[in-house]
Amino acid sequence: MSKRDILTPIGITFGFIIIIFAILSSGQTEDLISFIDIASIFIVLGGVIASMLINFKLNQLKLVPKLLKAANYQNNLNLNELIHLFTRLSERARREGILALENELDEVEDPFLRKGILLVVDGVEPEVIKDILEAEIIAMEDRHEKGQAIFLKAGEYAPAWGMIGTLVGLVLMLNRMQDPALLGPSMAVALITTLYGTVLANLVFLPMASKLEGKTDEEVFFKQIIIEGIIGVQSGQNPRILEEKLNAFLSKEEKAIKDEEESFEALGESVNEA
Amino acid sequence: MSKRDILTPIGITFGFIIIIFAILSSGQTEDLISFIDIASIFIVLGGVIASMLINFKLNQLKLVPKLLKAANYQNNLNLNELIHLFTRLSERARREGILALENELDEVEDPFLRKGILLVVDGVEPEVIKDILEAEIIAMEDRHEKGQAIFLKAGEYAPAWGMIGTLVGLVLMLNRMQDPALLGPSMAVALITTLYGTVLANLVFLPMASKLEGKTDEEVFFKQIIIEGIIGVQSGQNPRILEEKLNAFLSKEEKAIKDEEESFEALGESVNEA
Amino acid sequence: MSKRDILTPIGITFGFIIIIFAILSSGQTEDLISFIDIASIFIVLGGVIASMLINFKLNQLKLVPKLLKAANYQNNLNLNELIHLFTRLSERARREGILALENELDEVEDPFLRKGILLVVDGVEPEVIKDILEAEIIAMEDRHEKGQAIFLKAGEYAPAWGMIGTLVGLVLMLNRMQDPALLGPSMAVALITTLYGTVLANLVFLPMASKLEGKTDEEVFFKQIIIEGIIGVQSGQNPRILEEKLNAFLSKEEKAIKDEEESFEALGESVNEA
Amino acid sequence: MSKRDILTPIGITFGFIIIIFAILSSGQTEDLISFIDIASIFIVLGGVIASMLINFKLNQLKLVPKLLKAANYQNNLNLNELIHLFTRLSERARREGILALENELDEVEDPFLRKGILLVVDGVEPEVIKDILEAEIIAMEDRHEKGQAIFLKAGEYAPAWGMIGTLVGLVLMLNRMQDPALLGPSMAVALITTLYGTVLANLVFLPMASKLEGKTDEEVFFKQIIIEGIIGVQSGQNPRILEEKLNAFLSKEEKAIKDEEESFEALGESVNEA
Amino acid sequence: MSKRDILTPIGITFGFIIIIFAILSSGQTEDLISFIDIASIFIVLGGVIASMLINFKLNQLKLVPKLLKAANYQNNLNLNELIHLFTRLSERARREGILALENELDEVEDPFLRKGILLVVDGVEPEVIKDILEAEIIAMEDRHEKGQAIFLKAGEYAPAWGMIGTLVGLVLMLNRMQDPALLGPSMAVALITTLYGTVLANLVFLPMASKLEGKTDEEVFFKQIIIEGIIGVQSGQNPRILEEKLNAFLSKEEKAIKDEEESFEALGESVNEA
Repeated sequence: MSKRDILTPIGITFGFIIIIFAILSSGQTEDLISFIDIASIFIVLGGVIASMLINFKLNQLKLVPKLLKAANYQNNLNLNELIHLFTRLSERARREGILALENELDEVEDPFLRKGILLVVDGVEPEVIKDILEAEIIAMEDRHEKGQAIFLKAGEYAPAWGMIGTLVGLVLMLNRMQDPALLGPSMAVALITTLYGTVLANLVFLPMASKLEGKTDEEVFFKQIIIEGIIGVQSGQNPRILEEKLNAFLSKEEKAIKDEEESFEALGESVNEA
Repeated sequence: MSKRDILTPIGITFGFIIIIFAILSSGQTEDLISFIDIASIFIVLGGVIASMLINFKLNQLKLVPKLLKAANYQNNLNLNELIHLFTRLSERARREGILALENELDEVEDPFLRKGILLVVDGVEPEVIKDILEAEIIAMEDRHEKGQAIFLKAGEYAPAWGMIGTLVGLVLMLNRMQDPALLGPSMAVALITTLYGTVLANLVFLPMASKLEGKTDEEVFFKQIIIEGIIGVQSGQNPRILEEKLNAFLSKEEKAIKDEEESFEALGESVNEA
Repeated sequence: MSKRDILTPIGITFGFIIIIFAILSSGQTEDLISFIDIASIFIVLGGVIASMLINFKLNQLKLVPKLLKAANYQNNLNLNELIHLFTRLSERARREGILALENELDEVEDPFLRKGILLVVDGVEPEVIKDILEAEIIAMEDRHEKGQAIFLKAGEYAPAWGMIGTLVGLVLMLNRMQDPALLGPSMAVALITTLYGTVLANLVFLPMASKLEGKTDEEVFFKQIIIEGIIGVQSGQNPRILEEKLNAFLSKEEKAIKDEEESFEALGESVNEA
Repeated sequence: MSKRDILTPIGITFGFIIIIFAILSSGQTEDLISFIDIASIFIVLGGVIASMLINFKLNQLKLVPKLLKAANYQNNLNLNELIHLFTRLSERARREGILALENELDEVEDPFLRKGILLVVDGVEPEVIKDILEAEIIAMEDRHEKGQAIFLKAGEYAPAWGMIGTLVGLVLMLNRMQDPALLGPSMAVALITTLYGTVLANLVFLPMASKLEGKTDEEVFFKQIIIEGIIGVQSGQNPRILEEKLNAFLSKEEKAIKDEEESFEALGESVNEA
Repeated sequence: MSKRDILTPIGITFGFIIIIFAILSSGQTEDLISFIDIASIFIVLGGVIASMLINFKLNQLKLVPKLLKAANYQNNLNLNELIHLFTRLSERARREGILALENELDEVEDPFLRKGILLVVDGVEPEVIKDILEAEIIAMEDRHEKGQAIFLKAGEYAPAWGMIGTLVGLVLMLNRMQDPALLGPSMAVALITTLYGTVLANLVFLPMASKLEGKTDEEVFFKQIIIEGIIGVQSGQNPRILEEKLNAFLSKEEKAIKDEEESFEALGESVNEA
């Protein structure tokens, strides 16, 4: 089960608190109301939606709720567990033959990994397995990139529509310059769409596009290690060498955790053997 | 027959409604007229056209009406059907020999796919078939990129010409500062070209360039699966492996649809066999 | 002989007409004079030239007149003719041997194509021919890219120098704010360099850089087809397969033209054979 | 032991001295206080943190203190020593066999180099060694890029939040234009967030991202030379050729140092031999 | 001996003349003094230096005087001579054997070319020679890129520090708006740092970065031809084919010069043979 990624809602809430603080730090509480302008929200969000309708296809736009969910959940990827699994699979394959891997399938949840093991058990050639699994990674990357593109483009269109709203306000204001007393407040209203566009882009759309990109990178990285592992297991590579090879992908922190786990395990094994 | 892509006209209409709403939300109905300035439209559009005439060759500019049409129609690409077709072709080729594929040609509409099957039937070597079909994809990508470039460049020149119009207006206004009462309205008129340039770029040109790019990606993706399939059929690959390989390109949604179709089909087949 | 590319002068003329129209649409005829400021032209163009002198080497800057000429002439490349030629060369090579191609040389004008055929006749290995011809393409691309770079950089420096001119004007104006009546006109003069810089970049330098890039792409594409053709002829490839391979590079429009030509030709051939 | 990189604190201190000088050069000492606005610091830094929380995952953000430390320490990489080591290893491997390298391990501190030598001693095939070591480089590059991304993104969000603060201040000010005497100071306060955002981005975040990038490049370069060396030693390459090959990576300055060292060494060796 | 590249000092001098002309064209001679503000120069240059100290490592910053010198001298590369040399070497190697090339070494000054010939004479395998020489090119490119990066970054930081100076000036001015008479001159002083930052970036740093990039490209190109030539000579390639291959890298102008030289030479040879 993947955990909720609470950083996203925390960040957005914190961002809005900062803006409220900014208003209060040089204004009074009643000034807060002057920063809420439903029409301006409608102009910036509506304009972004209009540009998005032209920019994307319907089935891409339908991904938005899914993407919002994805941005709120963490990937549930444990590299140490994965490497451990491959070491075990590789040992078993060498001891009992490749067909014995079928019995391990019950413990494997990840559909990508399952598919890989199934292909190995089916006796498909390594070249073809690699082709199939890489095609899957490429297709996944492609789908995720289309998803990120939605947030990236929203982050580009939001300031543009903020500027459009401000230009409209400025033109209206300049046409009625007879009453200079109204100049200030009109200009203030005009600037609010620019404020909204900038906040939406820099607090919501662009950081979310980046977070989705980071998650995709992580998944691709994880799936590529799976391919390395599957091919290693199939080719009957020495379990120690395979482990060394996959370990190379770990960072120092992850290695530290791994070593700890292993010392526990070694302890467990020696107990079992006894 | 390809369906109309109604999102493009909907998006543009919605964008203009947003702008009208923006004007009315802080102005009166009569203010709407002050935002329509034929001269400003002429300056921004005319300037963009002037830059485009220098930027592109005549035969590229002649593509514009075709591109506008393309941006308004959806691609008619069904991956599930395609994979199904290749599984059938591959089975038939293994059962009755490659020449039997000629009888399947009547059902194939896509000219790229037809060409591929014809080359297989003609006994051309796989290497050469791949070369020919990939050359066709590259040439298509190249033509489409030139098309998108037209909208992308228009999206760059439009704000620049909006700014040129505003600078001209500002210079005129500043030369006649004796009458401060006229300052406001003159400045308002000057800003309208910037407004037009920004709207044209962010509501029309840039989203359309993106949509065309998305369509090209989709077509290239589809055609690459066709090449994979053609080569697989020719090399007498196992139909199940070939299907698995092509399935890797499908997203989860598409796979769900496919599985449903297949269960219906399996039903149909068992009925037929009975 | 290559035809003049009249789009470039038409575009520049049209662009200046648009600017004149913009001035007249909200000013009087006498305002036109206030937009011509020899000093400002000298500042923007002079500044761009100063930056270019540092940016480039003398032998690159000497290319400018040649590039201006290139931007005004169309490439004279006919893909259909080229493919037709290769089909004929390939048939002749298969019938009469590769040495017979020497007799075809008289009809070939393109120096790149001549060189390729000469290398084939000389019996140079295909690998080496490919190396030599590709080295020539790379060297050509390299030279052209350096040429485009001149216009691209000019398009970057022009707005910067426009801004430098405006900043100089603003500083002068602000130092003499005692007389507010002069503020407007001084500011107007200051803005003119920004206007010049923007127009030069967006109407002249950037579109021309794009046009040169488009022409280079076209030439590279054409020369790559020549390499494909030469190698195909040398390796004694079946003329029909070779034609099919080269046809893949044609767009639908070009294919339509080709088919028409061919039906005429087929007619001619059947008459000849009779 | 790696030395402290004192340039980073010197640069930041010097930058703030420049800003203080800028204030004093056209103001009085008491003006300095008007540039310190705790609320503005809180807005810009808080906003950047809010955007970062959304943009990154928690375990990436936890890297920040480590990255700050990394930016303050120099890499401790000596190419000359490394090449010298490989020449010695290669000579020994040719004389006494590859297993003799195990005795050299005590002198090797770098964990990457140790791992490489261990793999050679273990008799792992060159292909596999290269795979393992390159996987480690890629994983390191990937981790470092994620670290730099934190500073790069902070450098993008800081000016955006500076602008958000200024827009908030402007709107507040324009709503209270009844008292023109307060206009100036309010505007001044509004501008301070933009000043803070620009200084943070250009004096802290962006230069630090660049420095980290430079350090990563250096480490990757160093590790790639290690791979070259390890493979050379294992394949029993001639020590002189190997040295020549690795020398190619040195710059002229480094070579000069190397030649000097070598002449000393040659002296030493002749003394030893005598 | 490499010639001075006088374009760089000419360009910078010309640029400053343009700016002086811009000041005089709409001001008086005494206005010139108002544009020289030592404090502003100190702010922009000092700020850029502060950012550079953080951005780069000390040994990179030490390259600046060398880079300034490099930007002021022309490369001394003669392609025609080089190709001629390789034709001669190739002929001699075929006639007298590869060892005879050692006698040619006295005439070769370029250290890269010398190294290549030495490796050939030493009987090192072509693969290894290519590896060594390419490693040297890559290391050179890497060093030069780091050098260009210094100017590129300076070109990015200069306008940013110009803006920081202006913001500081604006805040000071707005805090003292009681005396409107001083507003203008204060604002003028504030703008001067922006002017300095823009001029430094567009007249000095960015063009110099480009020039260094152009010089690197040229050197890399030259060195790659040397590798082609060395490998050709070693593999005993036909001198005419080798010449043809290397000629492909020449532009038409260079070829024209070459043909002229050759006709003279051919004359000389026929005289010698007689």
